[in-house]
Parts: sequence; structure tokens; C-alpha cells
Amino acid sequence: MGSKYPPSMRGCLPLWTLLLVVAFIVIFFFFTSYDTSSQDPKELTDTYRVLQDVTIMMALGFGFINSSLRRYGWSSMAFNLFLLALTVQWAVLLNGFLEQLSPQKVVIKLSSIKLATMSAMSVLISAGAVLGKANLVQLVLMALVEVTAFGVMRMIQAKYFVKDDHVNMMHIHVFAAYFGLMVAWSFRRPLHGRMMEKYQTEKRSSLFGMLGTLFLWIFWPSFNSALLPNERKNAMFNTYYALAVSTVTAISVSSLAHPQGKINMHHIHNAVLAGGVAVGTSCYLIRSPWLAMVLGLVAGLISTGGALSLTFPHLAVGF
Amino acid sequence: MGSKYPPSMRGCLPLWTLLLVVAFIVIFFFFTSYDTSSQDPKELTDTYRVLQDVTIMMALGFGFINSSLRRYGWSSMAFNLFLLALTVQWAVLLNGFLEQLSPQKVVIKLSSIKLATMSAMSVLISAGAVLGKANLVQLVLMALVEVTAFGVMRMIQAKYFVKDDHVNMMHIHVFAAYFGLMVAWSFRRPLHGRMMEKYQTEKRSSLFGMLGTLFLWIFWPSFNSALLPNERKNAMFNTYYALAVSTVTAISVSSLAHPQGKINMHHIHNAVLAGGVAVGTSCYLIRSPWLAMVLGLVAGLISTGGALSLTFPHLAVGF
Amino acid sequence: MGSKYPPSMRGCLPLWTLLLVVAFIVIFFFFTSYDTSSQDPKELTDTYRVLQDVTIMMALGFGFINSSLRRYGWSSMAFNLFLLALTVQWAVLLNGFLEQLSPQKVVIKLSSIKLATMSAMSVLISAGAVLGKANLVQLVLMALVEVTAFGVMRMIQAKYFVKDDHVNMMHIHVFAAYFGLMVAWSFRRPLHGRMMEKYQTEKRSSLFGMLGTLFLWIFWPSFNSALLPNERKNAMFNTYYALAVSTVTAISVSSLAHPQGKINMHHIHNAVLAGGVAVGTSCYLIRSPWLAMVLGLVAGLISTGGALSLTFPHLAVGF
Repeated sequence: MGSKYPPSMRGCLPLWTLLLVVAFIVIFFFFTSYDTSSQDPKELTDTYRVLQDVTIMMALGFGFINSSLRRYGWSSMAFNLFLLALTVQWAVLLNGFLEQLSPQKVVIKLSSIKLATMSAMSVLISAGAVLGKANLVQLVLMALVEVTAFGVMRMIQAKYFVKDDHVNMMHIHVFAAYFGLMVAWSFRRPLHGRMMEKYQTEKRSSLFGMLGTLFLWIFWPSFNSALLPNERKNAMFNTYYALAVSTVTAISVSSLAHPQGKINMHHIHNAVLAGGVAVGTSCYLIRSPWLAMVLGLVAGLISTGGALSLTFPHLAVGF
Repeated sequence: MGSKYPPSMRGCLPLWTLLLVVAFIVIFFFFTSYDTSSQDPKELTDTYRVLQDVTIMMALGFGFINSSLRRYGWSSMAFNLFLLALTVQWAVLLNGFLEQLSPQKVVIKLSSIKLATMSAMSVLISAGAVLGKANLVQLVLMALVEVTAFGVMRMIQAKYFVKDDHVNMMHIHVFAAYFGLMVAWSFRRPLHGRMMEKYQTEKRSSLFGMLGTLFLWIFWPSFNSALLPNERKNAMFNTYYALAVSTVTAISVSSLAHPQGKINMHHIHNAVLAGGVAVGTSCYLIRSPWLAMVLGLVAGLISTGGALSLTFPHLAVGF
Repeated sequence: MGSKYPPSMRGCLPLWTLLLVVAFIVIFFFFTSYDTSSQDPKELTDTYRVLQDVTIMMALGFGFINSSLRRYGWSSMAFNLFLLALTVQWAVLLNGFLEQLSPQKVVIKLSSIKLATMSAMSVLISAGAVLGKANLVQLVLMALVEVTAFGVMRMIQAKYFVKDDHVNMMHIHVFAAYFGLMVAWSFRRPLHGRMMEKYQTEKRSSLFGMLGTLFLWIFWPSFNSALLPNERKNAMFNTYYALAVSTVTAISVSSLAHPQGKINMHHIHNAVLAGGVAVGTSCYLIRSPWLAMVLGLVAGLISTGGALSLTFPHLAVGF
């Protein structure tokens, strides 16, 4: 990728990321400290479990969903892990600075890393849209800009509009989708035969894509309830029901649309998750299962319908 | 699959499942409500973790174990997820109605979804036996009938014989095996060359099959202790030991039976789990590890021996 | 493998492992009992979760990392599970005897199984070095000797040097590396063309290798904090940061070293984990993130540099 760069410059690109690593270490040296207050061990364990669930979604879920494109299996997984590891470091710093709005020492808690990992999702979704078009340094730039923009957006929202962490985070799907499309637009090139072939999916790879989808599917209730202090039960319930219904709907519609009744795996990779996204913002407010189920049904119909009419199904990955 | 249907009818099949989705929503609208009592957050977290473990077993474990057949890699995974999502919705309703034996509103708790997910296992086991013979609607019918039959059986047992939820659930392996064989029998067709080829396993797929096996292996102690209120420790211990011994036994016997000492992957997919099934019912009663180990040894010997003599090893998947 | 044995002897090899299974059952019958004291259910759940995390690392992580060699995909996974199941049984007995230094009944707790699973890691690391050179019985012998040596070493350390369980366990990486190299040395054979080909990695397999890497990456903070009673928070923090930095470093250096800027998957499989190993011993003592990040940077540089200059990258798997 990035074949327009001369060899000498190509070689330099990763040097910039190494420099960034050193820069981060220096910033952490001057501006951060660990949380030394004694914490309830039970609460610590709880936060750690949720953090792990979210990390599984980011590393395994998005890693394998993006790997199902024909030519980018391996490198997309490596880039995904790379972006995750880098973004979490930056997001911890950024969220810390934005919260106190002053260059004091940022106190790092386990919940800071949880929040940073959730913010990293925006980068991983957008990365799916520019895969195979951007090189390592372009991806790094995109990651830093995107997570900064998302952080600033969340801060402004929290300050002037909604004070709710959960609601602000749930805008991540829309934000990441538009950001990714914008970046993909700026990288647009004429699509010729060789390019098209890049977006085809190998049959074998689809099992890996399914692996990623299932990890996202299983841990989505954790994601939707991660930032809720009290109403976690309802958030879990509603996410479960919305996911169940959107899965059944997506698979049925996909089978319905195929002349031999076969299920198109592209539709499934996206659409089974549509229910979880649809109830994201409101999941803790919904008081009965049928409403979550209706949202799941609508989300499944729209997202499978959208996938059927989209020429480039990979753009829809993750939202 | 189902190539005997005319194209027009084929197209209609998934419409029935969409109708079912809508019907479920209507039933949930009239007959269910969420549990609004305040619950101990620690207990909620515990139940949620066990529910996740069980979901991992069903979605990833059974999904990938069934995917190791040559021609059904992709669709078996999609069907598995489809059946899981559908069955959980129906089982929550059914278990609620059967418990109160009246058409009052069913109160949905997180433990209801846990129980429903565990009941869905019967469908996923049986689906392994009819894979590639049944179409989407036949699978849906099978799922609804099977989970209803299992629920009624459990209710009758609980009412007239054993009052223990755990024991009743552990009959699921035997129930699902016979039910699956029965359904497979009713779908029987003469096996010609093309059919036989469908049951062959690709080497590459076996790594996916192993992935499924390992997920089941790792979370089996969660499954065997999920419905126990107090004796969970012993259930975990005994399941661990039985699984460890049946694994060593199965791999040794498989290697022993092969002229070049190679390990047959079919045997392993089934037999490493045999120990967990063997101690299922009694796992909380066994008071010393050696007894669980003996059960694991016997289970490993029988199940590998059985797999060696079976012509269609896929039938033994899951029990 | 082991093609020098006559067919008759080959057939007998697995019989020895079956005999070992029976021997273990007899030893467990006479010398062990379950812990019958009532335990805090919260503590039990905690221990069970950590045990599961460690089991996922051993079964899935090491299983799939070793499976990425061309010819040993399937059998390496089976051997990995086999060695894990066998070693845990032996390590529980051994640790029990070594702790009380008398042939009394060993009381088995859930934490005994956790410790035994962690000790089994030494065997799984070393097995990566002799894969494809040793047969089943040689692997069993290696496992029994190695886990015994490691247990004795830990006991001597605990008695005469450091009393800290955590520190003693963290020497496992160094111990397993040298033990594995020693065993590999004793199995050395001239490398001819066919042998070399065995060490090549298929592209497809690398996604499985990545799956293993990611499971290790995600659960490494659990491993590094598993034996700490109080300072678990800092151990988790530091492991996260060290892993994040070593990942970014390893991927950058790997891309820097390749003429077309491509990422070599061998480097990643090893090097992303280097940070976690580097902070292993000291993770609970480090008081600020920058120090963990520096350790991660150094570890990433050394391990990727090492992998670049190593002819047989598979030897570096796991340490």
C-alpha cells in the first residue's frame, strides 16, 4: 500500500511512530500518576472484567471482522492491534486533560483505561473504511485526530448539553461512521478491476469474520452497560433482546433476498449487530422487552436492506 | 439444501421466520415484563458472567464445532447463531408460562435468559445431526418443538420426580442426542457419493473445530455449576478433573488406534468433552477427585471407542 | 514424527500414557481430598474467573500460537491440550506434596488448580521448541520432568530466598526458555530441506497464530496479577501499558526492517507479548506508567531485533 512513496521515504514512516512512542513516554513521565487511593477490591474486579470484555471486542471482534477482506487478512489484524494499543495511550491522556481542563497531573484509574478503550472503537470502525488505502503513518494520524475530535465532542456535549457519560459514548457509532466515510472520501481513487478484487471476500475468511462478529455479539451487552452506574440490568436485557431479534431478522431477510435462499455472509457480519447499536443510547430507559425487540427488528431490516443495496459492503462494517 | 422445493416456495420460507419474529414481539408485548425489583448488584454481576460463559459455549463452541464439516462451514455457523437467537426468545416465554402454569405476565429475570440459553443447547446439539439435510424453516420447526418438549419434560420432572433444577437440566445431553437422532432418521435419504463427501472434514476446518472444542472445554465447569446454589465449588472441581482425564485418555486411545500413532481430530472434538458430560448430573455430589477422574477415564474410553466404530462421527458431536 | 521406531513399539507408546492416567487416579485416591471448609462465595467466584483467564491463555493462546507452523497445525493443538490436561493433574499433586513436605493427604483448593495451570505454562512454552521432533511419550516425559523441576525450584526459592509466590512464578519464562532450548538441543538433528519446510508458516495459519497472540495479549494482565493478594491494581495497570508500548514498538520496528514496509507476522506473534513478560516480576512495584512504558519499549525493541536475527523464529514463541 502507499506505492507512490519512494523507497527511502517508505523506510522512514515507521520511525515516526517510534518517535511517537517516545513522546508518549515523556508526556506520561511529566503529566500522569497512578491512582493511589485504596479502592474496594470488588469494584476493582468488576471494572477489570468490563475492561476485559471491551478489550475482547476491540482486539478480537474488530480484528477478525476487518480480516475478512480478501487481501488484507493479516495486515488488517496487525493494524487493528496497533491502532488499539496506540489509541488507548493517547485517549487516556486526552480524556484526563479534557476532564480537568488544566495541565495538572492526570490521575490514571482503571476506569480511565476502560473509557479510552471504548473511545478507541471509533478509530477501529473508521479504519475499516480506509483499509488498504492508507499506510501506517496515515492510519496513526487518522487515529490521533479522530480520537481527539471524539474526545472534544464528548467534552462539549457533557458541558453544554447532556451530562450523561453513557449517552455521549453511544454517539460513537454515528461519529465513527461519518468520520470514516470522510477519510475514505479523501483517499478516494478510481476503482479498477484490481481494486474491486481487493474487496471480495474469501469463503474461508468468512469464518474468521464470523468469529469477530460473534465476539462483538456476545460482549455487546457489556459495552452498552459499561458506563451505566445503576440501570445496568435493563441495559443488558434490552441489548440481548434487540440483538436476538436483529439476528433472526437479518438472517431471514438475507435468505429471502437470495434466489436459492442462501445466506450472504456480508449481511450477517453487519446486521446481527444492528440491534445492539439501535438500542445503544436508550437501552437503560426501555422498560419492556417488546420495545427493544421492535428496535431490533427495524434495525435488522434496515441494515440488511442497506447491505443488499450497497455496492461496497465493507463500508458498513461495524455500524 | 431442500432442492426439491420449487423456486417460488423457496422464496417464501424465510417469510415464515419473519412472521415468527413479529409474533414473538406481540406475545412479549402482552405477556411479559421486566423484573423491576432491586437486585443485589453483586448477584447481578455473577449471573451476568455465568450467562456470558454459557453464551460463549453456545455461539462460539457449538458454532465452530459444527463448522468443521466440509461443505457447511459458513452456513452451519449462521444457522447456529440463528437457532440460538430464536430459541432463547421462545424458551424464556415457555419457561415462564410453564413455571406459573397460567397466562399471567411472565417476569423476565437475567436468570431466565441464562436458563433459556442453557435449554437452547438441546437444539444446537440436535442441529448437528441434521445439518445439510434440513432447510431454514425445518430447523425453526425442530427448534420450537424440541425446546418445548424439553421444557415440558423438565416441568414434569420438577413436579413429580426430582425437584432439582440442576439435575433436570443435565438430562439435556441424552434428550438432545435422541431427539437429534430421531429427526435425522425422519430426514434419512440414501447416502450416495456426493452425500458422503459432505461429511468429510477439511484439514483446515479442523482448527476451527478445535477452537469450538476448546471454548466448550474451558467453560464446561461454568455450565455444570450454573444452576447450583451452594455446591458450586465441588461441581467445578469435579468437572475440571473429569475433563482433564477424559482429554488425556481420548488423545492416547486415538493415537493408539491409528497405525502411525496419529491423532484423529474427530475423536478429539467429541471425546475431550465426554468427561464433562459424564459428571454432569452428579458433579456436586462427588466428594473426592479420584471418582471424577474414574468417570472421566471411562467416558474418554467409551466415547473414543464409539467414535472409532461409528461411520458418521458427526452424529456424536456434542454428546 | 519418531519414524525411527518400529511399528510394534509405536503402537505401545500411548499405552504408557493410559497407564499414567490410571496411576494418577490411584495416587489421587490415596493422597488427596477436596477442601471442605466453607469458603466466601465472592472469593470463590474471583478465583474461578482468574483460573478461567489463565486456562484461556494456556488452551487457546498457546494452542493457536503453536499451530501457526506449517505442518503441525492440528497435532500441535492436540498436543498442547494433552500436555495442559496432564500437567495440571501432576502439578496439583506435586505442589501439594512440596508445600507440606510429607506424604499427608493433599487438600485441593481452587487456587491449587490455578497455580498448577500457571505452572503448566512452562511445559507449553518448552513444547513450542521441540514441536515436530518429539513423540507423545517424549513430550509426556518432558512435561513431568519440567514441571517437577520448576516446582522444586519454586519451593527452594520460597524456602531460602524470596518468600513471594508471585516473584517465584514470574521466573517461569526464563526457566521454560532455557529448559526448552536444552531439550531441543538434545533432540537436535541435521536440518535438511524437508525439515526447514516444516518451520515455514502458511499465510492462512498466521490468522490462527494471531488469534492465539491476542488471547495471550488480552489476558496477560490477569496472569501477571493472579498471585498478588493486594497490589493487583498496579500490576494490571503496568502490564497494560507495557503491552501497549511493546505492541506499537514491535509493529513499527517490523515494518521498518522490511524493504516494502510490510509487517512480519513472526515478529508480532512474539514481540507484542514482550512487554508483558518484561514487567512480569516487578509489575506490582512500579509506581508510575512511564516506567512500565520504558520497559515495554526496550522489550519490544530487543524482541523484534532478536526475531529479525533469529533463523528459527519459532524458538522465541512465548518468551
